[in-house]
Amino acid sequence: MDIAPQRTVVGFIGTGVMGGSMAGHILDAGYQVHVYTRTRSKADAICKKGAVWEETIASLAVKCHLVITMVGLPADVESIYLQQDGIIENALPGTILVDMTTSSPVLAVKIYESAARHSLHALDAPVSGGDIGARDATLSIMAGGDRAIFDAVMPVFEVMGKNILLQGGAGCGQHTKMANQIAIAAGMVGICESLAYTVKSGLDPESVLKSIGSGAAGSWTLNNLGPRIIKGDFAPGFYVKHFIKDMGIAIESAKEMGLETPGLVLAKSLYDKLAENGYEYDGTQALYRLFI
Amino acid sequence: MDIAPQRTVVGFIGTGVMGGSMAGHILDAGYQVHVYTRTRSKADAICKKGAVWEETIASLAVKCHLVITMVGLPADVESIYLQQDGIIENALPGTILVDMTTSSPVLAVKIYESAARHSLHALDAPVSGGDIGARDATLSIMAGGDRAIFDAVMPVFEVMGKNILLQGGAGCGQHTKMANQIAIAAGMVGICESLAYTVKSGLDPESVLKSIGSGAAGSWTLNNLGPRIIKGDFAPGFYVKHFIKDMGIAIESAKEMGLETPGLVLAKSLYDKLAENGYEYDGTQALYRLFI
Repeated sequence: MDIAPQRTVVGFIGTGVMGGSMAGHILDAGYQVHVYTRTRSKADAICKKGAVWEETIASLAVKCHLVITMVGLPADVESIYLQQDGIIENALPGTILVDMTTSSPVLAVKIYESAARHSLHALDAPVSGGDIGARDATLSIMAGGDRAIFDAVMPVFEVMGKNILLQGGAGCGQHTKMANQIAIAAGMVGICESLAYTVKSGLDPESVLKSIGSGAAGSWTLNNLGPRIIKGDFAPGFYVKHFIKDMGIAIESAKEMGLETPGLVLAKSLYDKLAENGYEYDGTQALYRLFI
Repeated sequence: MDIAPQRTVVGFIGTGVMGGSMAGHILDAGYQVHVYTRTRSKADAICKKGAVWEETIASLAVKCHLVITMVGLPADVESIYLQQDGIIENALPGTILVDMTTSSPVLAVKIYESAARHSLHALDAPVSGGDIGARDATLSIMAGGDRAIFDAVMPVFEVMGKNILLQGGAGCGQHTKMANQIAIAAGMVGICESLAYTVKSGLDPESVLKSIGSGAAGSWTLNNLGPRIIKGDFAPGFYVKHFIKDMGIAIESAKEMGLETPGLVLAKSLYDKLAENGYEYDGTQALYRLFI
């Protein structure tokens, strides 16, 4: 399979904050890009840059060699791929389907199998790096599926990210993303507690970050979100609402494998409370609000 | 105050894994070092290098310009400093006392005040960086007390560590160390859950670490202890037993300021369980045992 820009039509479904940037990079790399998104206005910018608007998922799917999806919930992914008017029913044999949404590993396997029955090739390839990673094309991409397909899509992955790894068969990209979110979840609780302790004990939080940020307590979260927390800056890099979704999938997935995750369950319960308090469109660092 | 090596006698109480290395660096820097430790055999190595053994805390205290302590529990710190045969009753006016044990902030203030009444100067200056940091003289030192005293002791701190910061008045070094341990505690739960999820979902943990270690899930713990966990290496860098002690102090201290720390409380309860299972002399990464 060869997906050179001059002869490959890429379909991109879901042109929100993340998807919009990602599709833009694909366009900039010289690919013809067709787009569809639930709220058409969110595709205005990319269409102005040269992407072709499609009125339906089916019309997009039938025209593209490679279809990429970056949408919201697993339920959205499921309907986009598996419904009668969806991608799998309408794509031509040989088409490659790449779901980059953070979604359920079980669903990824289901899509892979359904795709195979239709002579289509599916990868799950969720990302980390957030809106900034999407904008700067520095996303980390963690993929699951067949090696040959992964290798074929690599030129397109490379215009969107760095640190692009095939983690195993179908679903393994989603599992890896879950491992990522699980590591972050309880960690965020610890960091909010630590900074709340710092403030309540009368210490200077900036000075404390200098003491603890480079040692055993150091982390991306502490060193990147810690300074925002200190300033009371809860603007979203990554929405509370989306993190809650991811943690829900992770808890479900862990349960399926008989793994207890008390730290993750605690983190989710705290984030649920934060969302109930009206902060679901804050950034994840807003968890700090519960501790002050 | 001038604590030049050629005219300063340094007393060091507690020459265990950490204290032994730290006292060794002070000796190497040219100071005369007198030592006392509960288990005399633990001072053999440093005495062979030239340190002078003292039979009692009192005999050490009366001879030294600067007394450093690196012992076990806050109860040990309290008795060493505040009992009648302890440091404060026996040190000569003007002596500087530096407790580098991770201990209670409240106790640090008590020692500072008692020292002041005896015309002595006390600092709390706990460290992070573990046995390797102590050996390589790369400890992070977080101090509380008076600026003039901190500045005076700096040449001695500098032979033991880097990133040496005065965080505020008496107790602020201990508070900073608590903030450090609080950030680590829940974070370690998240990392163990994440790696257990990784293994149970059939992923290759080394490859997953490559995907998630440099992004938003990245942390010192994940990148340094993660590889050990994967190999089943639970050898201590930092003992479970000592971490439990630190978390106990932190919980107590957070309670005193009306701060709820559910992540810390969860972490402590899991580590308590780990210790009950017989792993209190494993390294902190052994928490993973509970998840597999």
